[in-house]
Amino acid sequence: MSRCVIIGSAPVEHVEVLKEYLREGDTILCADGGLDTAARLGVIPHLVAGDFDSCIGRPPEEAQVIRLPVCKDDTDLMFCVKEGLRRGFDDFLILGATGGRLDHTYGNFGVLLYLANRGAKNLLADSQNQAFVAVSGMWKVKADKGTAVSVFPYGCVRCCVSYQGLAYPLEHGILSAEEPIGVSNQVIHDTAVITVHQGPVLVILSRLQ
Amino acid sequence: MSRCVIIGSAPVEHVEVLKEYLREGDTILCADGGLDTAARLGVIPHLVAGDFDSCIGRPPEEAQVIRLPVCKDDTDLMFCVKEGLRRGFDDFLILGATGGRLDHTYGNFGVLLYLANRGAKNLLADSQNQAFVAVSGMWKVKADKGTAVSVFPYGCVRCCVSYQGLAYPLEHGILSAEEPIGVSNQVIHDTAVITVHQGPVLVILSRLQ
Repeated sequence: MSRCVIIGSAPVEHVEVLKEYLREGDTILCADGGLDTAARLGVIPHLVAGDFDSCIGRPPEEAQVIRLPVCKDDTDLMFCVKEGLRRGFDDFLILGATGGRLDHTYGNFGVLLYLANRGAKNLLADSQNQAFVAVSGMWKVKADKGTAVSVFPYGCVRCCVSYQGLAYPLEHGILSAEEPIGVSNQVIHDTAVITVHQGPVLVILSRLQ
Repeated sequence: MSRCVIIGSAPVEHVEVLKEYLREGDTILCADGGLDTAARLGVIPHLVAGDFDSCIGRPPEEAQVIRLPVCKDDTDLMFCVKEGLRRGFDDFLILGATGGRLDHTYGNFGVLLYLANRGAKNLLADSQNQAFVAVSGMWKVKADKGTAVSVFPYGCVRCCVSYQGLAYPLEHGILSAEEPIGVSNQVIHDTAVITVHQGPVLVILSRLQ
């Protein structure tokens, strides 16, 4: 099964950084204005879904188009995620999902949780950051010295985690939603392991500059 | 008691929009690189706190300076919030807290919850967005047609809210962390009331363009 890449309509500055995330064989789903980002990335979407309130370009001939109503519960991006799950994908990369509107940025963390709760691999990326939600288990994280590794409880009051390979260690440490003490950890070498005893957690990797 | 304005070190593009948030008599606390934003805003901080890893300028003579260690649990911004509470403030405006590093942006929502849990009025603003956390009660929100009003559970699995004056109404509606259906509502006139029956909730107002 190939990976499902969903491109949202958030503004993308450094398109060349996002290009590095794409792999041959990816199935590309564009949420509305994500179509314009796909064009800048040089990829042809398999599907474009939206109310077409935020895109400038027209879907290419090859792409399937699903026109969504303007008034709906799900965001266009969430529609694409559910469509991807319905088509059997279990590995998702989400681009064009941060920046500009803070409501969509925050809502897209919820989308990651939706995927994690359904056992799907989930990664959100922009030119400076990566994020994923983990419900439980051990998660290997690769990062260099110039990247901060942060862990937050997500969709819960508090979480319980252990770290291996991070400069500020934790062993069954409790992180609460109101005190973001899991922010800005550092890898000792190039890999860390985050064990989620009680989740869900949101893991964010941010390049310092 | 004056209001406590905390300026973080996140990148600020449209400094002129943030100027409109400032009021005479505000007490300004800068978290590290927030000092540079204060200079661009034309305000002299009362206090500058940080490990000074992110600011370019030097604190002005008038400002109190608290030098923090590089290795610490709290972010510089959270230190300022706790310092503000310690000095008796119960009304906080946070600027320079979004954009760039997604870990700090997300962590700063936790800072809002920290304030809300202590009964303090809290508002985070950037040039396109406003956000606050409400634990319970009725909250009047002013917005125009070009602004989306979004409500999310924060630091909890689900919340229960009612809306008055919003285009998509809710009456004791349950919002879950994984399905961001509270995203992008619209005011019918210019004011809405959000009643939080069970929180906490994160309310985000985002200008559409």
